[in-house]
Amino acid sequence: MVSKSQIKLITSLAQKKYRQQHGLFVVEGLKGIEEFLDSSLSLHSLYALPGYFETEKSRIEVDDRELKKISFLKTPQKALAVFHIPEAGEELNQGLTLVLDEVRDPGNLGTIIRYCDWYGIKNVICSNQTVDCYNPKVVQATMGSLTRVTVNYKDLEHYLRSAQHPVYGAFMDGASVYGQTLPQDAILILGNEANGISKEVEALVQHRIAIPRFGTHETESLNVAVAGAILVSEFKRSG
Amino acid sequence: MVSKSQIKLITSLAQKKYRQQHGLFVVEGLKGIEEFLDSSLSLHSLYALPGYFETEKSRIEVDDRELKKISFLKTPQKALAVFHIPEAGEELNQGLTLVLDEVRDPGNLGTIIRYCDWYGIKNVICSNQTVDCYNPKVVQATMGSLTRVTVNYKDLEHYLRSAQHPVYGAFMDGASVYGQTLPQDAILILGNEANGISKEVEALVQHRIAIPRFGTHETESLNVAVAGAILVSEFKRSG
Repeated sequence: MVSKSQIKLITSLAQKKYRQQHGLFVVEGLKGIEEFLDSSLSLHSLYALPGYFETEKSRIEVDDRELKKISFLKTPQKALAVFHIPEAGEELNQGLTLVLDEVRDPGNLGTIIRYCDWYGIKNVICSNQTVDCYNPKVVQATMGSLTRVTVNYKDLEHYLRSAQHPVYGAFMDGASVYGQTLPQDAILILGNEANGISKEVEALVQHRIAIPRFGTHETESLNVAVAGAILVSEFKRSG
Repeated sequence: MVSKSQIKLITSLAQKKYRQQHGLFVVEGLKGIEEFLDSSLSLHSLYALPGYFETEKSRIEVDDRELKKISFLKTPQKALAVFHIPEAGEELNQGLTLVLDEVRDPGNLGTIIRYCDWYGIKNVICSNQTVDCYNPKVVQATMGSLTRVTVNYKDLEHYLRSAQHPVYGAFMDGASVYGQTLPQDAILILGNEANGISKEVEALVQHRIAIPRFGTHETESLNVAVAGAILVSEFKRSG
């Protein structure tokens, strides 16, 4: 049974303002919830249909109608959990660090966090204008990877000024990434979906790289998450 | 001014059944519509706000309220066009051909068509269970690339049995794609989001390849569109 105040709290967590105010975010779907339960994150409350997560202490049983009321999904996924947002994670000063300069689309950020997990990238640094990683759509798209990748938000100019590794940036007119010798310890910056890397951040890039276009049509472009995946693969394949 | 019968026709095109019945599909957004207008595809009708596409003959002027009625987008994009679905495109028997074995998510198919365009891949062959490339969400995600990439639907077993180039398939347990010498003329198969490549198609794969996992957690996985992008990049980088 879900109370009115619980419904109000959970639905408010669609907005960053309330996520920050309450220090809470939502995870939906069995696999995702299991991964967060197995992580170091702290559970606030768990709402589940009969037969799911029966052994969880803080579990509240709901029916389909109630789950629909609190879910952010068109098709609710058996259970919904609310977790406490953790403190800013500790950063590892080695390997590849991905920096996102105003990535706005939640699906893109979720996809990026997911492949960072696959490639063993521990740190993602986001500009303060980048979409919040605790946005429900981002959490959904990460498929649990958010438990293993540290995502921190900060002023990129300040961060990059004190960077201890070579700084690479993805630009349409950069040098082809194929055939370059790429360092294991590096920072790779991806820009905004429409505008790319901002002028302020561009000034701090040491190596402008690009994925060469094989097609012949000038209007072609690559989605930022896809471009990032190919660039990350290039850094890791030679490692 | 949009008539009731026009609204009925356009909204019906959300469904594959009606797209096939009428031989029509919808394109939204200025850039997308421009790319389709510049292509060999034949325009059926065009609905636009004042000031947009003023010189198009078959243009019907609409206001915001009318555009909202016919649009499939939460935020309608100034104009909506209906085009005739072209005949099955001719296939090029060289270079890399991408084969999709039941890719179900419209966003994934749109993303895949978009990077095929970037990498100059002319042919995408889809199983009949793969999402329809004229689904409005696919068209939206392709960003106009659908005008330059030929997407054909067919029985994959039949197609692969008569394949004239080496057949590669993406599997979690395949051999690492890094460091392999990959042919320029090849067929690369990507499987379903949840189940991968089907048993019937797997039997026709000659080379099982994979993107090695650098992370340490066994639940990690790569989205099929992302995995495909990295594999396509590997084929093309060595070309």
